[in-house]
Amino acid sequence: MSELDELNAHYDAMPPVRAMQVRAVHYDGQVLRLRAPLSHNVNDKACAFGGSLVSLMTLAGWGLMTLKLREAGIRAEVYVADSQVRYLAPLYADLEAGARLGDEVDWPAVLQAWQARGRARAGISAWVSGPDGAVVADLQGRYAALRPA
Amino acid sequence: MSELDELNAHYDAMPPVRAMQVRAVHYDGQVLRLRAPLSHNVNDKACAFGGSLVSLMTLAGWGLMTLKLREAGIRAEVYVADSQVRYLAPLYADLEAGARLGDEVDWPAVLQAWQARGRARAGISAWVSGPDGAVVADLQGRYAALRPA
Repeated sequence: MSELDELNAHYDAMPPVRAMQVRAVHYDGQVLRLRAPLSHNVNDKACAFGGSLVSLMTLAGWGLMTLKLREAGIRAEVYVADSQVRYLAPLYADLEAGARLGDEVDWPAVLQAWQARGRARAGISAWVSGPDGAVVADLQGRYAALRPA
Repeated sequence: MSELDELNAHYDAMPPVRAMQVRAVHYDGQVLRLRAPLSHNVNDKACAFGGSLVSLMTLAGWGLMTLKLREAGIRAEVYVADSQVRYLAPLYADLEAGARLGDEVDWPAVLQAWQARGRARAGISAWVSGPDGAVVADLQGRYAALRPA
């Protein structure tokens, strides 16, 4: 099972995520990209529901943190701790989200923290972009990794 | 149709919200309360999915802003502009959210802004609490009201 297949199986195991029809479609070691159809994530104004935008960005960040840790041989429980979200423009198309580590993140230091304490945190930037590539919503989130219970 | 029935019809018109089985259950003029069953909003760790928590809080804020404006005879399009979210503890029970105007909001001034310019903004505090009443997630959001297109 590829890392994206495994991630998608994880997403599908969550009923509200399955209802959104979220799909991880690409990961290049830096950016994870997710998609979800507008039809399952539409509001009463025929554009993307704000809750779906923030859920997709939150899931993209969660997936990125999970994949980055697995590359280092770490299977952790990953949680979102907090986030700041901006809704910039309505989106009348399918949802496409991306996530990458925050510019301020020193990833080797994150891995060192994990080795030393069995827990680590990292900031992640996520966004949703429209068909023209313009960002319609963005999220700055902090994620925590803990040893599985 | 009561104001809560109308709000629930609005929520049910959005497929991702219907999938969450969101219900507006109480409004006393200050606090709007929503509920959603854990079964439809659960993650892979058997607790509430973070995206459902933020969606429910965002919807509570949207509903509160909509109801407060209707009390003043205003039918506006309400949008969430931005939010800050904290996830404080896992929730292993049905989701119960509340929303109220932010402490800093001067509501008469918001209504004056609407009358003068046909648009207005207000900050709203929302939260999800567990069975023991402790807050498990909170949100500070800014909502904008615009004239219907």
